[in-house]
Amino acid sequence: MSNHTPTNNAEAIAELRNLLGDRLSTGSSVLEIHSHDEAHTTPALPDAVVFPDNANEVSGILKICSKHGCPVIPYGIGTSLEGHIVPHRGGISVDTSRMKKVLSVNEKDWDAVVEPGVTRTELNEALRTSGLMFTVDPGADATLGGMAATRASGTNTVRYGTMRENVLALEVVLPDGQIIETGTRAAKSSAGYDLTRLFVGSEGTLGIMTKLTVRLFAQPETVSAATCVFDTIEQAVDAVIMAKQMNIPMARIELLDELQMKGMNLYNPDMPMPEKPHLFLEFHGTEAGVAEQVSMFESVCEEFNASDFKWASKTEERNRLWQARHNAYYAGKALRPGCDGLVTDCCVPISSLAQCIAKTKKLIESSNLIAPLVGHVGDGNFHLLILVEPGNKEELQRANDLAGSVSQLALEFGGTVTGEHGVGLGKRKYMEDEHGAAYALMGVLKKAIDPNNIMNPGKLVTVN
Amino acid sequence: MSNHTPTNNAEAIAELRNLLGDRLSTGSSVLEIHSHDEAHTTPALPDAVVFPDNANEVSGILKICSKHGCPVIPYGIGTSLEGHIVPHRGGISVDTSRMKKVLSVNEKDWDAVVEPGVTRTELNEALRTSGLMFTVDPGADATLGGMAATRASGTNTVRYGTMRENVLALEVVLPDGQIIETGTRAAKSSAGYDLTRLFVGSEGTLGIMTKLTVRLFAQPETVSAATCVFDTIEQAVDAVIMAKQMNIPMARIELLDELQMKGMNLYNPDMPMPEKPHLFLEFHGTEAGVAEQVSMFESVCEEFNASDFKWASKTEERNRLWQARHNAYYAGKALRPGCDGLVTDCCVPISSLAQCIAKTKKLIESSNLIAPLVGHVGDGNFHLLILVEPGNKEELQRANDLAGSVSQLALEFGGTVTGEHGVGLGKRKYMEDEHGAAYALMGVLKKAIDPNNIMNPGKLVTVN
Repeated sequence: MSNHTPTNNAEAIAELRNLLGDRLSTGSSVLEIHSHDEAHTTPALPDAVVFPDNANEVSGILKICSKHGCPVIPYGIGTSLEGHIVPHRGGISVDTSRMKKVLSVNEKDWDAVVEPGVTRTELNEALRTSGLMFTVDPGADATLGGMAATRASGTNTVRYGTMRENVLALEVVLPDGQIIETGTRAAKSSAGYDLTRLFVGSEGTLGIMTKLTVRLFAQPETVSAATCVFDTIEQAVDAVIMAKQMNIPMARIELLDELQMKGMNLYNPDMPMPEKPHLFLEFHGTEAGVAEQVSMFESVCEEFNASDFKWASKTEERNRLWQARHNAYYAGKALRPGCDGLVTDCCVPISSLAQCIAKTKKLIESSNLIAPLVGHVGDGNFHLLILVEPGNKEELQRANDLAGSVSQLALEFGGTVTGEHGVGLGKRKYMEDEHGAAYALMGVLKKAIDPNNIMNPGKLVTVN
Repeated sequence: MSNHTPTNNAEAIAELRNLLGDRLSTGSSVLEIHSHDEAHTTPALPDAVVFPDNANEVSGILKICSKHGCPVIPYGIGTSLEGHIVPHRGGISVDTSRMKKVLSVNEKDWDAVVEPGVTRTELNEALRTSGLMFTVDPGADATLGGMAATRASGTNTVRYGTMRENVLALEVVLPDGQIIETGTRAAKSSAGYDLTRLFVGSEGTLGIMTKLTVRLFAQPETVSAATCVFDTIEQAVDAVIMAKQMNIPMARIELLDELQMKGMNLYNPDMPMPEKPHLFLEFHGTEAGVAEQVSMFESVCEEFNASDFKWASKTEERNRLWQARHNAYYAGKALRPGCDGLVTDCCVPISSLAQCIAKTKKLIESSNLIAPLVGHVGDGNFHLLILVEPGNKEELQRANDLAGSVSQLALEFGGTVTGEHGVGLGKRKYMEDEHGAAYALMGVLKKAIDPNNIMNPGKLVTVN
């Protein structure tokens, strides 16, 4: 574990303590919590953690840190997967957990205005009686600020979009402490550069979001979920492509390979399922609409020899099914208890997905590692959970090599090395390959907005 | 008409002539065509017009213009509405009309790669046998480059999105001549700053798009269109809000006021319609799905006293209906033959739309001007066509005042002064009011990417 405390940071901390009193902490357990996310990145302690209550305080914090050239690391709830919130150069971790208000729910406009510390399940809890829902659902119960910062997505994205489509407007504090608003609550606009989309996915390197306006959707009248089993992954992927061609508006369509299913059986022994490639699906619509989607999808599956169709139309059964999917990470780990997990995040055009997965499987085989696969197959996005024995350096190296080869594969197929987890520290090394000359332009933007390079320095983009 | 030819531009032209030969023109009729768009902006001649064939030539052009500090104005087909392509500081108009290739159509991935000079109807022509369609449909048959540059939308946006959602990736030539690629053909990505969305809507002020990857959708199995009549605009808007709350997936829902209907009757005397507020609608889906949508929508309309329901399920009838809607601009002008038209472009949260339109109507009344109204009501976006006698300065002033008041109204209701036309020259004066401190950040970005301010200078954003 590394740590850095230049004198400048100490001066910044003194001023921050004046501003925030006991909402600044240098207690060792607080520093430890803010030293790591859920990734395999080497942890690093911040010099202090601050807990602002509002945008004005965030502005005050950034003015102080700007003056002293002190690094600032925005922190949501610590569930990122590429070391985004690790203070690898020390500095101040800005924890937004006290900014948790749902400020408004606009039922006619299908939007809500929230503070960045609200988590996705907290927002949906607040929406329960409105007939509306917030759809983006990464594996973790992340904060909306963190989800916007990493341009997160999830199992519903195939129908309802990622954070890119679901953040309408932002309040952002810039590195110099200026508070700006980007976008409006109007459904569309051609009024200048799309600053909202620039901050979404910027991973705290350009400023701190202090308010988000997010898009909501109507809760569907009827929901039906299902699982079905295929002989091969190719057949499962081809079934999804055909279902898309037939315009079936799938709300969720998730792929799990035979190894992942084995892990799920170990993790949930009371819910045994065949250890073969599965699709987990969900359909939303009117009663008649869902019935039609289901029957269309069944005809697709017949074509590809799917079997063991199981429908879950009761809410309880459905929740159990999706909880099992959301727990895929832990279920995968059950294949090798006590191990660490390294997660990959390729996303390719769906036409290349089956081929990309086939090549990935060969790479896994020759790596001699255990790596179950789950995928948001409707988006062409899939994850490996590469299992690694803690402390086994040689194995970690092999796991990193495998992750690197799989990332290169995604690029060869015209895709991206990260569909939804983001760049952070872990994916920086692929950025040049993925973006070419455009990566330098990202550096130009970073430098223009954050000339002192205080905002989450060294993440996403490297500036001189 | 103003004109500027600094010596630098003459030197640039000499070098450009070496590069492009007779694909550089200074002929007066060519200059005239590139001096204006469809707006009321004062025309201004470029010093020369160039017709590049590919990205390498565009790169060569920008290197030369960069060296000489010569303004560059990207030109699609001249249908913009805010003076975007007017060379008000002279310089080189870069006409992309020779870059017209549909480079690939990826039927499994639902995307196409095109050059910027392809128009929306040309792309759909190329897609006809693929079962796919490109959905963004502004009034004019604009080029895709122009549509991306202004973040255009149209009648289908309520279901299929604007250019913001429908451009997946770009090839862009930066002001210094560097060619970059932004984004990939993957459905989503978290790999760094969203450069694609930064260039979409940047109106040629940051670079020139030379290739676009756009999203396609499956042509619906069944389409049904309709018109219906309301006693008041409020009732029409409330019907749309209720239909949205009921989750009816309307593909198009357009509002036309009584005055606009009068103009349409003058323009299409063989298609007479009641001169009262109308909704024009379209439903897409399976046969059963469309039937269900239609019956749900009829129940909504009953609630709001709609009458004169007319269904058009034959392709020919539908085309006639939507052609009439697309000709709204000319139909509006028929109310006062020989007049000029000044078009407004407010977009507000839909919950405020009825109130915003009611206030707009009062402003029209007290202005003593004729101004029919059409609206993409599902998006909260509406246009006035303010009719002005050519050469009547007092009346033009009144029209500008009315447009200004309506724009302010949009801001008071939390909306935007331009839902889909863009900023250009005409809307710059509202940018400070709409964006506040965020407008200065746009200037920072412009300066970082185009430090010599050669790209469409003076449009969208003003830099020092």
